[in-house]
Amino acid sequence: MNSKHYSVDHLGPFENPQRDADFRSNKRFAGKKLGLTGCEVSLSCLPAKTGMPFVHAHRKNEELYFVVRGSGTFYVDGNEFPIREGSMIRVAPDGARTLAAGDEDLYYICVQAEVGTLTQATWEDGYKVDAKASWMKA
Amino acid sequence: MNSKHYSVDHLGPFENPQRDADFRSNKRFAGKKLGLTGCEVSLSCLPAKTGMPFVHAHRKNEELYFVVRGSGTFYVDGNEFPIREGSMIRVAPDGARTLAAGDEDLYYICVQAEVGTLTQATWEDGYKVDAKASWMKA
Repeated sequence: MNSKHYSVDHLGPFENPQRDADFRSNKRFAGKKLGLTGCEVSLSCLPAKTGMPFVHAHRKNEELYFVVRGSGTFYVDGNEFPIREGSMIRVAPDGARTLAAGDEDLYYICVQAEVGTLTQATWEDGYKVDAKASWMKA
Repeated sequence: MNSKHYSVDHLGPFENPQRDADFRSNKRFAGKKLGLTGCEVSLSCLPAKTGMPFVHAHRKNEELYFVVRGSGTFYVDGNEFPIREGSMIRVAPDGARTLAAGDEDLYYICVQAEVGTLTQATWEDGYKVDAKASWMKA
């Protein structure tokens, strides 16, 4: 379902992660399928008591991690701190980062966008349109 | 908890939305607090059987909607389609958009990033760092 102005993908309900599997099999990128041009996005799950097996950084992109279910530990530059549903972490390109699940499976969204590219947002950038969806009609 | 390379905010567990309240009271923006420079992000909840009361578009920003709990209906340019946990919708700046909850409260993340600004991502942009988090140590 694509048009000039939108595209949709349904990953389906958050599902139990594959266990004893390479971490990449529990990560799903969506940017290419959706045709995103301003950011990349992925949904990942780390099974309980497992963590990403390496530390990484970026060249141009800021990352935003958003925990949508479960809890765990986040690492940046040698610092470790707890994360849980509703935690959001911004990491600058050079930050050395990784994360792990705690006693529950950890589901998180990761967004990559090039640092410094957002010039305006929300009502500086948005405007109302004179149209009505079905639930706005009397 | 902020450093040169990261910042953290904990919205807390997804909570029941305020009912009979202006929709804005169920929306939390996080970009300013986190210091995001490549995108803006918000977590919103629409109570069951309620919808955004207007249609809007953007000037420069592409939006990504990611449904993290519940189900509902999304509208773009006169088209309406069902959304549910795991649905992702990209909307180009000029797309006229809005959304509504179904029989369940609808929780979604919305990311705004300037269209066309992502030049590389993932392993084109990322690189491994020779460091170890606590769970990587023998």
